[in-house]
Amino acid sequence: MLTYSFENIGTQSLFTHLYECIRNDVISGNLAPGTRLPSKRMFAKNLGISTITVENAYAQLIAEGYLYSIPKKGYYVQDISSFAAGQGQEEALAPVPKAAPEPEAPKYFADFVTNQVRPENFPFSTWSHLMREALVSRREQLLANPPFEGVPELRAAIASHLHAFHGISVSPEQVVIGAGTEYLYGLLIQLLGRERKYAMEDPGYRKIAQVYDSFGVRYAPVSMDANGIRTEELRDRGIDVVHITPSHHFPTGITMPVSRRYELLEWARQSRDRYIIEDDYDSEFRLRGKPIPTLLSMDRKGKVIYMNTFTKTLASTIRIAYMVLPEHLLAAFREHLSFYSCSVSSFEQYTLAAFIESGGFERHINRMRSDYRKKRDALLSLIRESGLSRYATVSEQDAGLHFLLKFNTKLSDQTLADRAAARGIRLSPLRNYYYDSSRVPEGLEHTFVINYTSVDEAAAAKALPILAQIIRE
Amino acid sequence: MLTYSFENIGTQSLFTHLYECIRNDVISGNLAPGTRLPSKRMFAKNLGISTITVENAYAQLIAEGYLYSIPKKGYYVQDISSFAAGQGQEEALAPVPKAAPEPEAPKYFADFVTNQVRPENFPFSTWSHLMREALVSRREQLLANPPFEGVPELRAAIASHLHAFHGISVSPEQVVIGAGTEYLYGLLIQLLGRERKYAMEDPGYRKIAQVYDSFGVRYAPVSMDANGIRTEELRDRGIDVVHITPSHHFPTGITMPVSRRYELLEWARQSRDRYIIEDDYDSEFRLRGKPIPTLLSMDRKGKVIYMNTFTKTLASTIRIAYMVLPEHLLAAFREHLSFYSCSVSSFEQYTLAAFIESGGFERHINRMRSDYRKKRDALLSLIRESGLSRYATVSEQDAGLHFLLKFNTKLSDQTLADRAAARGIRLSPLRNYYYDSSRVPEGLEHTFVINYTSVDEAAAAKALPILAQIIRE
Repeated sequence: MLTYSFENIGTQSLFTHLYECIRNDVISGNLAPGTRLPSKRMFAKNLGISTITVENAYAQLIAEGYLYSIPKKGYYVQDISSFAAGQGQEEALAPVPKAAPEPEAPKYFADFVTNQVRPENFPFSTWSHLMREALVSRREQLLANPPFEGVPELRAAIASHLHAFHGISVSPEQVVIGAGTEYLYGLLIQLLGRERKYAMEDPGYRKIAQVYDSFGVRYAPVSMDANGIRTEELRDRGIDVVHITPSHHFPTGITMPVSRRYELLEWARQSRDRYIIEDDYDSEFRLRGKPIPTLLSMDRKGKVIYMNTFTKTLASTIRIAYMVLPEHLLAAFREHLSFYSCSVSSFEQYTLAAFIESGGFERHINRMRSDYRKKRDALLSLIRESGLSRYATVSEQDAGLHFLLKFNTKLSDQTLADRAAARGIRLSPLRNYYYDSSRVPEGLEHTFVINYTSVDEAAAAKALPILAQIIRE
Repeated sequence: MLTYSFENIGTQSLFTHLYECIRNDVISGNLAPGTRLPSKRMFAKNLGISTITVENAYAQLIAEGYLYSIPKKGYYVQDISSFAAGQGQEEALAPVPKAAPEPEAPKYFADFVTNQVRPENFPFSTWSHLMREALVSRREQLLANPPFEGVPELRAAIASHLHAFHGISVSPEQVVIGAGTEYLYGLLIQLLGRERKYAMEDPGYRKIAQVYDSFGVRYAPVSMDANGIRTEELRDRGIDVVHITPSHHFPTGITMPVSRRYELLEWARQSRDRYIIEDDYDSEFRLRGKPIPTLLSMDRKGKVIYMNTFTKTLASTIRIAYMVLPEHLLAAFREHLSFYSCSVSSFEQYTLAAFIESGGFERHINRMRSDYRKKRDALLSLIRESGLSRYATVSEQDAGLHFLLKFNTKLSDQTLADRAAARGIRLSPLRNYYYDSSRVPEGLEHTFVINYTSVDEAAAAKALPILAQIIRE
């Protein structure tokens, strides 16, 4: 009779040992296909273990397909040898493979490229308190699947916020929550379809083109003039859907004047297929005057899809963004995309809803705005004091979280950025935001986009004289 | 000189009132394009308000494009009238639009279709404690953008869990976190490309086909036999990428035997383009014996992409899933998709990492498994006691969170489901999980998929006699 030794099995259970012995014999062919195994009782007696252990091992091997049973006859070896040659044996022994290590991010002491919320600007204690409150008082709701458009409480809170802050009237049903604008953008491509031709501003957010590429849709970068994206070019290139940042163009800082807004709305109105995606990414941080009215608030025909995000106002690592769909798109949206689950945790949706409803969010952005204004002012003073202002001119400093800095230098943009990087300063030339870099106008050469929210004053005070020195050298 | 009344402006600020008066006159054409506005000082004096207020109103109107200034000359009205006809006026007055209300979900007292974690199964206090701990001790890390593959701590914790629980050795670099398997599935389509032909099991998860449809890729449902998806059919239909659930097929419950596994690996190995996506969605809940070894652990050639989710083990509303990529795909994945941000909140990633590392997750799934076993046993007893067992046969009850119930009835599946729904019981026939319903084999007619985790015992005790009655009628 088949037999295995149960000595020296260490910490392995009797069950696991027996299971592995039989399995290895099946894989290696020591137990030929069709071989009848001993009955459970006989085998147990012979091995000096309990019948239950044998029964469990047989059951597991049947479940995995190494054995089969014929009722009232017994247990037999499956024919797997033709596939298994030289394969299964090492399974449990395989060492942890070495993957190519992830490229390590270079270290900068002053990063003027990434805008990240600093720990002192995140409302940790309020957030922690509201999260705990949700965990205590909303147990049932937290675990029940919300509509895929998001938790109704959060969508209502966002609709109220849009009304209070931007004077936009939308119904909560139009608000769709998603894990970041890029995710929502992917949803929109799935909704509007692959047949349309998409466009984005050039210069602009690179991610938009990357999403288009990744979804394999046709698109074109469309050039800008002093008033924003050029409407004739949209027409000439047969664009259907265009992504724009009219309140505060990224990165040039242009605010689209009302005349161009009407032109664009008129363009959209001329065809059923046309839509404008208004990305209002940093309107909360306009540092002077009132917020600019949105394109959405001027839209009478349901041609504007409004998008905004909490990644700048709250934290880029809590992935919550939203869009406002025109009513006539809601039915198609539900029909085609409601099989998806909402991509944001309900736990964080309820927490954010409470944060907005309690007025905490408004106080928070007011605090951040004044903090960012101070940060910007300190940076502008430092630019003067460091002597950098002799070699550089600041522009577009009134809105949002970045401004432009034009250096008076003969160094190429890349050389300047490289020399700064070598000394721990991360800078990105405006040129890098052009899809077609031959379009960089003469007036914008040697211009850099300065995102200042993640650089603290001490780091800035250290960085600016270094930049002045690089230019002087 | 231009003049406006400042009486009866209610709670409106002087600034807002002046801004709106001028804007409305520009939109209506009362102020003709090119008109020169009064100087700030004169206008202020005339209106009896401060110069600063006029200056701010002019600045806002310039920012929005209603006015322009010529240095040393003054402020002029922009030409916007041709676009604005009949448009801008009502902006702030637009009432909240009425959207089509969202379809209301019908109410069931016993839902045997959706598996949702019940509040008594979610570790609220541990989760709350770990979240608070992260909020206190990881402030910098919580706000720093993680790699788009996810927070390294969580990926390392998952790699350890895979080793301890499934005996799979993978490096943390291979682990990619995303907001649900359907999101990860979309990423995979973007990675593997639109040229390949995709496939899924028929019957199977409907969402897979919906994702394919939504991304507009070619795909085919592939039929099953008693051992799982049919390899010859994959070959015949020219499939490149197939999604399967080998440990516990959804919904038939089939565990793919080792022979079919080798066959599939062999199929994948025969072409560079071929990949197998192994969806191991409920392997933690195998109620008898050890977990079934994964296909990934048998794969020597990097052809298996393993996927699993915390939506069943933790909560479907905390959107965390992961996949394990073969090493040779990592470089392409980073190159093409690292422009995306990770779709899961870092706050929840750190909390989950701590939950796994502390051993809390393992204790939690052990508790849930034993709870689900009890729930299943209670339900099986109730089926016997309610008399339903005279009209129905249970099968595939040993693994995962559902089993099959075959009714001995002449009622059509739809009639039975409708009658149950009318009495508050939600049931889904196996037939509904077939892409091609002509494929339903004779032996599986009148068979229903019973997901039992969200139905409590009292509801089940009420529901089963009703079902028996419906069959008897």
